[in-house]
Amino acid sequence: MTTVTVGILGGGQLARMMVLAGAPMGLRFELFDPAADACGGQLAPLQVAAFEDEAALAAFAERVDVVTFDFENVPARSAQFLAGRVPVYPNPDALAVAQDRLSEKTLFRQLGIPLPAFADIGSRDELATRVAEFGLPCILKTRRFGYDGKGQFRLRSAADIDAAWDALGGQVARTGLILEGFVAFEREVSVVAVRGQDGEFRAWPVTGNWHVEGVLSASLAPAQLTPAQHDAAIGYARTLAERLDYVGVFALELFCRGEELLANEMAPRVHNSGHWTIEGSETSQFENHLRAVVGLPLGDTRMLGHACMLNWLGEMPDADAVLAQPGGHWHDYGKEPRDGRKVGHATLREDEAGALAAALEDVGQQLGRPDQVAPAVAALRD
Amino acid sequence: MTTVTVGILGGGQLARMMVLAGAPMGLRFELFDPAADACGGQLAPLQVAAFEDEAALAAFAERVDVVTFDFENVPARSAQFLAGRVPVYPNPDALAVAQDRLSEKTLFRQLGIPLPAFADIGSRDELATRVAEFGLPCILKTRRFGYDGKGQFRLRSAADIDAAWDALGGQVARTGLILEGFVAFEREVSVVAVRGQDGEFRAWPVTGNWHVEGVLSASLAPAQLTPAQHDAAIGYARTLAERLDYVGVFALELFCRGEELLANEMAPRVHNSGHWTIEGSETSQFENHLRAVVGLPLGDTRMLGHACMLNWLGEMPDADAVLAQPGGHWHDYGKEPRDGRKVGHATLREDEAGALAAALEDVGQQLGRPDQVAPAVAALRD
Repeated sequence: MTTVTVGILGGGQLARMMVLAGAPMGLRFELFDPAADACGGQLAPLQVAAFEDEAALAAFAERVDVVTFDFENVPARSAQFLAGRVPVYPNPDALAVAQDRLSEKTLFRQLGIPLPAFADIGSRDELATRVAEFGLPCILKTRRFGYDGKGQFRLRSAADIDAAWDALGGQVARTGLILEGFVAFEREVSVVAVRGQDGEFRAWPVTGNWHVEGVLSASLAPAQLTPAQHDAAIGYARTLAERLDYVGVFALELFCRGEELLANEMAPRVHNSGHWTIEGSETSQFENHLRAVVGLPLGDTRMLGHACMLNWLGEMPDADAVLAQPGGHWHDYGKEPRDGRKVGHATLREDEAGALAAALEDVGQQLGRPDQVAPAVAALRD
Repeated sequence: MTTVTVGILGGGQLARMMVLAGAPMGLRFELFDPAADACGGQLAPLQVAAFEDEAALAAFAERVDVVTFDFENVPARSAQFLAGRVPVYPNPDALAVAQDRLSEKTLFRQLGIPLPAFADIGSRDELATRVAEFGLPCILKTRRFGYDGKGQFRLRSAADIDAAWDALGGQVARTGLILEGFVAFEREVSVVAVRGQDGEFRAWPVTGNWHVEGVLSASLAPAQLTPAQHDAAIGYARTLAERLDYVGVFALELFCRGEELLANEMAPRVHNSGHWTIEGSETSQFENHLRAVVGLPLGDTRMLGHACMLNWLGEMPDADAVLAQPGGHWHDYGKEPRDGRKVGHATLREDEAGALAAALEDVGQQLGRPDQVAPAVAALRD
C-alpha cells in the first residue's frame, strides 16, 4: 500500500486525536493552522498560515492526498480552492450548509427533521416582530462563526430586545442573524455518525450531553432514550448525511422534550460529544472519520459497556484520581492553560452502569467537582 | 502538571506505540536510535546516534526527565551512563540480567522458577559433554544479542556438534554461549506484566503464542490454561519482577508441557505478545509501561473479551479484510518492506470466543494465510 497523507485544516485537539488514531493505520498527516502553537503540531508537521492564504493552501495541497477539517469555520472559498486540487471530505457544500445556522435549519425543515422555531433577522423591527411571534424566552444568534455559546444573546423579556440588538445587531452584514425559539428541554443528546465514500452509514449509540455556560461539560453513552427516540435520532442523522452526500464523521445535536426530539445543530466534524468512543467503542470517531476520508471500510460502532466523558476547561486537574479508577482514561491535549480553554478530557468506562456511577462519584469528590459528575450519575442511577 | 519528557532508547515500532499511548497522557517523547529511518521518528523527535556515543547520550539525558527502552540490547555501560544523569527504568541491573541468557536462567533457578536444563559452554569439548548429559535435541545459543531465533543452532544428533561449533563457537569470547535442553512443549505462553515504582504489580491474562521459524506469528488471549497454571505463571513473573526491583512492563515466556510450565526467557520491555492489549484490555501494555516509568497509578489489566494478534512480516497485507471485521484493528508501523521484518500487526477482538474464531478464519482465508490463523482458531474451538 502506498503511503497516504491526510491534510487537516485546523491543528487543535481534534486534529491531534485524528493523528493518534490514524498513525496505527499507517496514515501520515500534515496540519494547517494559523496558530504556531496548535497542539496537533506536537505529533505531525504543521504549516502555519492563515486559512485565506491561497499560496499556502496550494503548497499544502501538493503535499497531501486528501483534505479534511478539525475546524468547521474554514472559509468556504478556501475549502473550494483546495477541492479544485485534491479530494476534500466532507465536501465544501456540506461544510457551507453547516457553517450557516439559517441554511442548516432550513435544510432540517425540508428534510422533515423537527426543530424549534427559527427566523432570519435583518433588522431590529424584524427581531421585535419575531420575538412576539415565538414568545419568550428566545435566543438571537449569529448565523455564522458561533460555537460553544459564543455569538448568542438570550432574550428573557421584551425589554431585552434593545440590548440584544445592541450586542449583535452590528453583525447583520458580516455574519447574519437568526432568532431561535427557546425549547424548555429536559435533556440534550447528540448523534455522532459516520458516512463512507460508498454511502455506508454508521452511528454510535446516542450520547447524552450536559453543558455549562454553553460549553460541553459531560457526555454519557448510551443516552437514556426510548428505543423509538434512539431510532428517530439516528434516522435524522442518516437523512441529513445522505442529503449532503456527507463523507466522514459529524454530530447532530438534539433537544429532548418529553418524547419529542428537536434538532439544534450539526457539527461537520468529529465532535466533543464523541470523545468517549476512543475507549468506549470498538472503533473511535477519529478512526472512523479517517477510514471514511481515505476510503477504508468503516469500523464497528458498538459500545463496550457504558462510558462518560468529562471535559477539562482552563487547566488540567490532577490525573491520579482518574487514572486510579479501573476504567479511567486521561487525555491531555498538551495546551497551555487559559481561562475557559478546552485543555483535555477524561473518559471513564465500565461494563455496568452502577460501576460507572460509583467511579464518577469518586472522581467528582476527589477532584472537588461533584457538580460536573452529578447529572451523569443521576442518569445512570435513573 | 509540568510537562514530562520520556526518552526512549530505540526508536522502532515499540517506541512508536509508546508515543501513541503516552501522548494522550500529555507526555512528550525523545527517541534515540542509530537508524535515521527508525519508524518512531515519524511521531516524535529522533536523535540519530550510536548507543555507545556518550556525548550524544549526555545531550539526550539533558532533554528528558526519564529514560526507558524499546530495545533490550543497549550496552549495559550506556544504560549505566544515563542512569548517572536521569532516572532509568527498568534499572540497568535488571536490563543486564535479561541481556544475558546465563544470568537470567541462573536467576530463574535461584527463584525456584522451573526451567529446562542449561549450561554455560566455553569450548567444543564442553559442548560435547553437555549434549551427552542433556540428550538430543538441544539448542546452542549465544548468551547475548539473540532475538527472534537469531544466534541459535539446534542440534538433532551428535553429528551436529561440529556444525554447531563451527556456526557459533567463534562467539564464545564476544557473547558467550549457552546450551539449552530441548522441551517437547505443546504450547508456548507469555506473561506480560507491569510493576510500578511503588512496587505495585499487575499482569494481563496469560497469552498463548505461536512462532514460525523463531518469530512470533500469532498471539491469543486469554491462553487456554488451567487456573492453577495461570496463577503459577503470573506468580513466577511477580517473583522475578520483585527480585529485579523491576519498573515497567516485561514479558516472561514459558513452555507448557502437560501441566508443567518451564521458563524460557524474559524480555525487559513491552513485548510483541502484548500488542493485543491495545484494543483487548482496559489499559494497553504501552500505556502501563509509561504510567510505571513516570510514576502514575497503574491501569487496569482486565481483558475486553477475547483477542488475537497476527504479526505481519516482510510487507503489509491488504488492510481491508481485517478492517471489514467488526473487531478488526490495523497497525502499520510505517516501515519500508524488507524480508522477515516486523512491519505491522492486526488485532481481532470479540466478546465471544466463537465470534473471534469465525473472524480469524475469514481473515485467514481472505488474506491467503490459513496457516497463520489455524492454531488460534483451534485453541478457541477447543
